[in-house]
Amino acid sequence: MISGRPLEYDPDAALDAAMQLFWEQGYEATSMSDLLQAMGLSKSSLYQRFSGKKELFLQCMARYTERVGTRLRGRLDQADSGREFIRELLLHAVIEAGGTECRRGCLLMNTASEFAQQDPEIASRVVSGFEGLRAILRQAVKWGQGEGEITSDQEADALAGYLMSTIAGLKTVVKGGASERQVREIVEIALRALR
Amino acid sequence: MISGRPLEYDPDAALDAAMQLFWEQGYEATSMSDLLQAMGLSKSSLYQRFSGKKELFLQCMARYTERVGTRLRGRLDQADSGREFIRELLLHAVIEAGGTECRRGCLLMNTASEFAQQDPEIASRVVSGFEGLRAILRQAVKWGQGEGEITSDQEADALAGYLMSTIAGLKTVVKGGASERQVREIVEIALRALR
Repeated sequence: MISGRPLEYDPDAALDAAMQLFWEQGYEATSMSDLLQAMGLSKSSLYQRFSGKKELFLQCMARYTERVGTRLRGRLDQADSGREFIRELLLHAVIEAGGTECRRGCLLMNTASEFAQQDPEIASRVVSGFEGLRAILRQAVKWGQGEGEITSDQEADALAGYLMSTIAGLKTVVKGGASERQVREIVEIALRALR
Repeated sequence: MISGRPLEYDPDAALDAAMQLFWEQGYEATSMSDLLQAMGLSKSSLYQRFSGKKELFLQCMARYTERVGTRLRGRLDQADSGREFIRELLLHAVIEAGGTECRRGCLLMNTASEFAQQDPEIASRVVSGFEGLRAILRQAVKWGQGEGEITSDQEADALAGYLMSTIAGLKTVVKGGASERQVREIVEIALRALR
C-alpha cells in the first residue's frame, strides 16, 4: 500500500505541546482529550508512541529538566559572580517571565507538590531533577565562597539545598498572589542567610 | 409527619472528613464520589447543604485556616521567645507530624500551588488565609526584635513574608523527598537571615 499523504506529525512539537499543558494545568487536571488535541494525535497513536499519559508525563518532565539545566548552566557561565547569579536566579524564578509564566511555577516543583511521592516513579524523577538543579546552585555557591562573597561557615551543598527551598517557596507565594515588591523583599532577606 | 429515625448526620464530622480528603489529594483529584462516601451524604444532600464541590471546598479552607490560626496563636502564647517560636514552627511545618501528615503539606499552600489564582474566589481565600498566618509570624518577629534576637534592619512584616515563603519552600522540598536532616539544615540556614 502506498501512503497518500506524508506524515505531518512532528514528535518534538507534540511533546512540547504536552509539556506546556502539564506545566500549565498539572497532571490530574490535564485530560487525555486536552493532550490529544494539543498534540494532534489520535488516542491510539498516543498509546502507541508514549504508552499512555504517565509515560508521556515522564518524558515531559525529562525534557523540562534538561531545558532548565541547559539554560541555567548557560547563565552561570555568563554571570559576573556566584552571588549575582543566585540573586538573578531567585528573582527570575518568579518575575522575569511575567504573568502566565510566573503563575505556572516550575514543573518539577509543581509535580512534587501535586504527587507528594505518591507515585514512586514520578517521585524518583522529581528527586533526580531537583538534584540536577541543586548541583548548579552548589557550583555557584562554591564560586561565591571562593570569592569571599558567600559564607564558608556552611557547606556549599547545604546552602544549595536552602536555595532550592527558597526558590520553591517563592514560587508558591507568587502563586498565592505575592506582588513583585514582596518577592524582591523576600529575595533580599533570603540572601542575608548567605552572608 | 413524625420522623422515624433521628438524624445521624453530623455536619461537623462530615466537613472534617471532606477537609481531610481535599488536604490529602488536592481539589481536582478529589472526586464527588470520594466526598460523598467520606461524608456519608447522598449527592442531593451534598448539593442541598453545600451547593456543590467548590462551596464545600471553600468551607474546608475556612475551617483549616481557623484551626491552624488557633493552634499557632496558642503556641506563640506559650513560647519562650519569638525566635524559638519561629524555629519550632519551621521545623514543625515539616517534621513533627511524621509520615503522611508531612507529605500532604499545608492545605492553603497546596491550594495556592494547584490553582495559581485561576479561580478568583479561591485565590482570595488563599490570600486571606496567608494573611492570617503572616500576622502571627509578624507578631513573633516583633517580639524577637524587641528582645534583640532578631534583626531590626528589616521591617517585621517583610521578615514575616520571608518566613511564609520559607515554610512554603520547606513543604515543597519535603514533598520532593528531602530528609529530616536536610530540613534541619535548611531551617538553620534560613534563620541566619534573621540575624
